[in-house]
Amino acid sequence: MRIGIADTTFARINMGEEAILTLQKKAFSDYGLRIKTERYTVPGFKDLPVAAKRLFENYKCDIVLALGWVGKEDIDEVCAHEANLLLMHVEVEAKKHIIKIFFHEKEAVNDFKQQKKIAVDRIQKHVLNALALLKGKEELTPLAGQGLRQGYDHAGGLK
Amino acid sequence: MRIGIADTTFARINMGEEAILTLQKKAFSDYGLRIKTERYTVPGFKDLPVAAKRLFENYKCDIVLALGWVGKEDIDEVCAHEANLLLMHVEVEAKKHIIKIFFHEKEAVNDFKQQKKIAVDRIQKHVLNALALLKGKEELTPLAGQGLRQGYDHAGGLK
Amino acid sequence: MRIGIADTTFARINMGEEAILTLQKKAFSDYGLRIKTERYTVPGFKDLPVAAKRLFENYKCDIVLALGWVGKEDIDEVCAHEANLLLMHVEVEAKKHIIKIFFHEKEAVNDFKQQKKIAVDRIQKHVLNALALLKGKEELTPLAGQGLRQGYDHAGGLK
Amino acid sequence: MRIGIADTTFARINMGEEAILTLQKKAFSDYGLRIKTERYTVPGFKDLPVAAKRLFENYKCDIVLALGWVGKEDIDEVCAHEANLLLMHVEVEAKKHIIKIFFHEKEAVNDFKQQKKIAVDRIQKHVLNALALLKGKEELTPLAGQGLRQGYDHAGGLK
Amino acid sequence: MRIGIADTTFARINMGEEAILTLQKKAFSDYGLRIKTERYTVPGFKDLPVAAKRLFENYKCDIVLALGWVGKEDIDEVCAHEANLLLMHVEVEAKKHIIKIFFHEKEAVNDFKQQKKIAVDRIQKHVLNALALLKGKEELTPLAGQGLRQGYDHAGGLK
Repeated sequence: MRIGIADTTFARINMGEEAILTLQKKAFSDYGLRIKTERYTVPGFKDLPVAAKRLFENYKCDIVLALGWVGKEDIDEVCAHEANLLLMHVEVEAKKHIIKIFFHEKEAVNDFKQQKKIAVDRIQKHVLNALALLKGKEELTPLAGQGLRQGYDHAGGLK
Repeated sequence: MRIGIADTTFARINMGEEAILTLQKKAFSDYGLRIKTERYTVPGFKDLPVAAKRLFENYKCDIVLALGWVGKEDIDEVCAHEANLLLMHVEVEAKKHIIKIFFHEKEAVNDFKQQKKIAVDRIQKHVLNALALLKGKEELTPLAGQGLRQGYDHAGGLK
Repeated sequence: MRIGIADTTFARINMGEEAILTLQKKAFSDYGLRIKTERYTVPGFKDLPVAAKRLFENYKCDIVLALGWVGKEDIDEVCAHEANLLLMHVEVEAKKHIIKIFFHEKEAVNDFKQQKKIAVDRIQKHVLNALALLKGKEELTPLAGQGLRQGYDHAGGLK
Repeated sequence: MRIGIADTTFARINMGEEAILTLQKKAFSDYGLRIKTERYTVPGFKDLPVAAKRLFENYKCDIVLALGWVGKEDIDEVCAHEANLLLMHVEVEAKKHIIKIFFHEKEAVNDFKQQKKIAVDRIQKHVLNALALLKGKEELTPLAGQGLRQGYDHAGGLK
Repeated sequence: MRIGIADTTFARINMGEEAILTLQKKAFSDYGLRIKTERYTVPGFKDLPVAAKRLFENYKCDIVLALGWVGKEDIDEVCAHEANLLLMHVEVEAKKHIIKIFFHEKEAVNDFKQQKKIAVDRIQKHVLNALALLKGKEELTPLAGQGLRQGYDHAGGLK
């Protein structure tokens, strides 16, 4: 299995490295998957869709983690919207998942400690989601409707 | 007939299971259809378009139910917009229907009982819509213009 | 000539029937066109793009009338935006016109008589537009810049 | 060279005719281009993308002028956004330019004289842009960064 | 290596020339790349996607710099959104990067000196990003998560 890791120089933490660390810890021990990683670093998150496309086509990745850090201005949110639309275009065209892992500064404006905490939690949990999806389409089914959250505590299922 | 059921771990009720229950009760008894189901669970609703694509192409589904639960924040609504656009792209490309069954927390903020009620009603009615569409393009024509609603009471036709 | 009529059970008037009535009255008498119609009824207007696609590809329609009724909430307008984008994708791909005939409840909130009046006027006038486009690309040229409106009185050309 | 002229019956001035007049005056005298025109009139600007597509594919146009008149309501602006997105899809697919010439009533609400003045100026200047683009990709390079405007006086370059 | 430079007559500084100057200074000395440039000037930034497409397909460029200047009105921002979406479509289709270098007047309304300063800094830094991406997918990896900014001082990484 080959996992693409696309991240940016715009981000304020090393999101790609964080993802790779979690993969190294969990891929084999928890999911029995022997994986290789391909790293691709671009300037900003609007460069991620073409990076993902290239990771699928030129580097034969089976799944891509697209790691973006969104600034706190409204224009940044518009850009994130654009990037997400195109990431989804790339994944439906490739018929392979792109796990879209975006941290938005609006989630914790100017609270840098909290920003880092949310981003790291989101990356770690979504790396596990990626591994589950690589195992099969029903691997996550036991957790369907459980109100899982990445970046925060789980909301839980409604009783 | 093969029906794809794509749902999420983000949702706070088990939307996929709810859909499957209705299918089991109604597909043969009310529509005379013998069906098989394929389940696909993803982390969030932005992962549904590629799941739907794979259900059509890799699992030969004739129709897909895409079940999403949208959080109450504005950013969640933007994401729902993105997911819907891509689901529609996938369905026009596949030339097969995807029934987009999204519950939005904004419909009943923090009223969990009402949230569940709306979501379940929407799922049950849309499962029947899916079965009707599988029967043929004029199966729903007798109900055209009747102001049907999913999640709520029907609005009815204007006199 | 084969004309596709796609409408919804969500609508509060029978938009498809209204369109067919106008076609029957005018197609031959006013445009000299012998036409056949194909009806396709879906739950909501977000199901119209794939219905249109199927009307073009599986039912060999030369043009499609896509009839939608948009609720009064903001979320309904977002959905209408999505549906329109995809309808336009389908028509450029098919290289054939889809006449997008949407009534928006925001045009006359809670005034049901006025809602019906606008919707019917829009359907009737747009059916004639469809027939004109079937005749040729310059059929409407004598009316270019005349400020024509569907659903309302014509605005007229500026002097 | 073959130039497509797509306009609407919704517009309140005859935008297509205005474009053709400028082409007749300037194409040969100022650019040395012998041109033919193909006219295509549709109901509203949301019908322009498929008209442009057909002008490229069925009528072998080398460039298309898409002439739209946008009403003053917010919904009209949403529609203009949709039309522009699809016009851009059509042009990248055709690998040929579509000059998108839209007048927005919001530019001069209810001042009809000013509306006409802006629209005509925009058409005339953009027709010259179209002719320049037909000549070659560096024809406009001497004017790069000059702050050119269509519909208004040029803003000029910053010193 | 062939680098496409697409810019506009709408911009208020000569963005294409600025990009070419930086390329000439840095491509060989800092990155060891021998490059050729292809210039393409269009009226406005909404014409950039098709220009980029043509630079890839007709002029065999390996990367494109798309240089846009966005006016200060809300409608200009909508247009920038459209242009960016389509630029991203073109790049995923071409599987090659388009560096989207847009200056927005909203960043420094009516402060022309500041406008020029932001725009020039953004162009210069993004030209270097383009050169790095041409070298390889991990060329920027040592800078991942460093909070780099174009147009402004770098934000830096979070500790």
